[in-house]
Amino acid sequence: MYNNDLVRLVRDNATDQARTWVRGNHAVRVAEELARMDPSDRAVAFRLLDKDKAMSVFELLDAEHQRTLIDGLRDERVHELFAAMSPADRVRLLDEVPAKVATRLQHGLSDTEREATAELLGYWPRTAGRVMIPAAVTLAPGQTREQALDRLGGLGGRSEDYSLLPVTDDERRLVGVVWLSDIVTSEAGTRVEAIMSTEKYSVAAGDDQESAARLLQEADLLALPVVDAEQRVIGMIPVDMAMEVLEEEVTRDALRAGGAEPLGVSYLSATVFRLARTRAVWLLALILAAVMTVNVLEYFEDTLATVVTLALFIPLLVDTGGNAGSQAASAMIRALAVNEVRVSDLPRVLWREARVGLLLGLLLAAVGFPVASFFYGVDIGIIISLTLVLICLWASAVGGVLPLIAHKLRIDPAVFSAPVVTTLVDATGLIIYFVIASFVLSDQLDVVTALAGG
Amino acid sequence: MYNNDLVRLVRDNATDQARTWVRGNHAVRVAEELARMDPSDRAVAFRLLDKDKAMSVFELLDAEHQRTLIDGLRDERVHELFAAMSPADRVRLLDEVPAKVATRLQHGLSDTEREATAELLGYWPRTAGRVMIPAAVTLAPGQTREQALDRLGGLGGRSEDYSLLPVTDDERRLVGVVWLSDIVTSEAGTRVEAIMSTEKYSVAAGDDQESAARLLQEADLLALPVVDAEQRVIGMIPVDMAMEVLEEEVTRDALRAGGAEPLGVSYLSATVFRLARTRAVWLLALILAAVMTVNVLEYFEDTLATVVTLALFIPLLVDTGGNAGSQAASAMIRALAVNEVRVSDLPRVLWREARVGLLLGLLLAAVGFPVASFFYGVDIGIIISLTLVLICLWASAVGGVLPLIAHKLRIDPAVFSAPVVTTLVDATGLIIYFVIASFVLSDQLDVVTALAGG
Repeated sequence: MYNNDLVRLVRDNATDQARTWVRGNHAVRVAEELARMDPSDRAVAFRLLDKDKAMSVFELLDAEHQRTLIDGLRDERVHELFAAMSPADRVRLLDEVPAKVATRLQHGLSDTEREATAELLGYWPRTAGRVMIPAAVTLAPGQTREQALDRLGGLGGRSEDYSLLPVTDDERRLVGVVWLSDIVTSEAGTRVEAIMSTEKYSVAAGDDQESAARLLQEADLLALPVVDAEQRVIGMIPVDMAMEVLEEEVTRDALRAGGAEPLGVSYLSATVFRLARTRAVWLLALILAAVMTVNVLEYFEDTLATVVTLALFIPLLVDTGGNAGSQAASAMIRALAVNEVRVSDLPRVLWREARVGLLLGLLLAAVGFPVASFFYGVDIGIIISLTLVLICLWASAVGGVLPLIAHKLRIDPAVFSAPVVTTLVDATGLIIYFVIASFVLSDQLDVVTALAGG
Repeated sequence: MYNNDLVRLVRDNATDQARTWVRGNHAVRVAEELARMDPSDRAVAFRLLDKDKAMSVFELLDAEHQRTLIDGLRDERVHELFAAMSPADRVRLLDEVPAKVATRLQHGLSDTEREATAELLGYWPRTAGRVMIPAAVTLAPGQTREQALDRLGGLGGRSEDYSLLPVTDDERRLVGVVWLSDIVTSEAGTRVEAIMSTEKYSVAAGDDQESAARLLQEADLLALPVVDAEQRVIGMIPVDMAMEVLEEEVTRDALRAGGAEPLGVSYLSATVFRLARTRAVWLLALILAAVMTVNVLEYFEDTLATVVTLALFIPLLVDTGGNAGSQAASAMIRALAVNEVRVSDLPRVLWREARVGLLLGLLLAAVGFPVASFFYGVDIGIIISLTLVLICLWASAVGGVLPLIAHKLRIDPAVFSAPVVTTLVDATGLIIYFVIASFVLSDQLDVVTALAGG
């Protein structure tokens, strides 16, 4: 039972059991549990870890959780942890803490480490420069297996940074990359140029970190060279950092897809007020947009008063339009995120979505017509099914095209989330509905108007 | 101009320009362009690549696109490409092609490669076993730097698989992992046990590939050991494969978030019919669920006929409820996907979301009350603002809890997408609305009822 939950053990002050739990579980599990605790419990739990495990666990935590831990630990302990971090992780933590704490933290670093950190801090947040490891080692194309291994032997330090190495010319300009494993597994005497990859994948330090991470992923690299304007290698983005960047980006998109701003911290560590704030802006914006639907309905109030039955289908029709629109928008947002679609594909997308929407509308109409006709008469059946066809067509086309337009305007396409698209197509959906209803019921409505007039 | 778009060059039969484009761009760009083409254009463009680039590009393509290419290439060319793939990529492609083609493809393999492929094919799709590389090399804790490097020297082959190596005891049981870079950069004579990590991260071959990929990511590994029931190492999942698995999973979640099933192929390569099919089931299911809203409104039809003004706010109120619900659901789906929240957190989540919903509802009511009162009278103002408070509270709570319940029932939480939650809270939202309206307008409605009765 208690095997499952360090959170509860710490909350219940079951220190011995908590210590056993911590010893029996790997660092990732421990870090996950810490992330789910209140800050004070987190500090208590962290103190249960032995030194090595504490290092591993600390490195695995988000910067936000690292920050809350720092407040609760002695200074020497903090300096130790901080010095053991990679420069990029360190910079992420520095971004989280107040300036005073940041200065104190950097005091504990060696000169080289402080320089490396300062270099990264010189780049804008969310750029490739911020997440790179300053390049310490580059190889030359003419070096042999043995020369390369000698160059690296005894370097020590955070050596996972050397799993993929940049190969450069005499002026440190990128000519390729080579996997350390390719060097090691090659025959004695093999030259680097014979086994390096010459596709010159690289990004500039000022480039967006997400596109850098995606390039690394698509090229199946273990690290991506970062170069300056003269193509000189200044650092490498390691694959684990790229994965973290992509994960943050995906979380942002996922929350936007639900119509909320990114939290910046894990769900359970966010305060209720913070949760509400990330959602409030969108919710307000959407309700203001939804006022359009009130206006549309007001315009058709007479029709509605005459044939109250029409009101019954309003939620069903606006929901369906919204759903068709969300489906198209989500497909498009995702396709843009993974570079499957470009802005220049807009006409193609429009034509595809219009046909998909038409197909879906016809399908729903085929189901809806007999049912609606049976219960509410053929007139209503015709209105509902015609509306379904047109709403699906319209919503799919709008949902497919809006994210592309956003992308073109350099707005995050993910803002055209399901809720936003839903709200936008609702008002137009209602217009479609009532215009069709006015046509189909024109006799009935004329009679009423005539009566009212008479 | 034409620098941007290989798709167009091939479509326009501008072969020379296309060839220049292909030479001037790296393999990832070429692969991206190929993914956006029709199958016939794709084969044409692929033939423009020289042998090395063709290999790189082919490896970077999705299995679906590889399949369409195979149909258009000569057999020798296909065998070459197929033999150069990693076993896991090969298995993905074999899953896509018809059985006859699969047999033909495997004929071109060496015996070792065929065995490796067959081993992976023995595991179920979407398990860790399917995406691993059968472990060729393991190290012993007592080996020195030099012994380890000698063991690997001259092995050649697909050596990126050796960037992180499993360390095992005499019975091949996992005792730790060691980064190749740590071996290389250590001092001469260093033993593996001194630099290996003893956190025994591993998965079983039958485990879900997504949780394996997530563990690899969270532990910042370059490869994750796959073990059998006796903890013996049988393979390693490389980091690039883990990234691919996570990306597929994210795409699945993103499409589900919009209320559609995953496509399985890139957006532009899917036929219109396939696109429609992935959306049709959900759209139909949702419209059937939306029939509840018709029933609710029918129940309150008399109230609606008496006070037609109430109809005006139906879309606005159901939209807002739906939006609040989607926000909570998306936050929860994402938190579950990254292991931030567990099923046991349900009471905590419920209590948080209820408070968040209440806050949001009060905010919207504070804006809505004066506006609605001014235009439609205080009675309507009261009804609208009370409804907003209760709908937000209810929708946030439902939206937060449903994904957790799904997770508990071993259903993908992502099925409780924005559209699904929206549709589910709509009917209840309408009940809340009309019950409040009946109370507030009871005098008015009583009079009408009395008149009607009299």
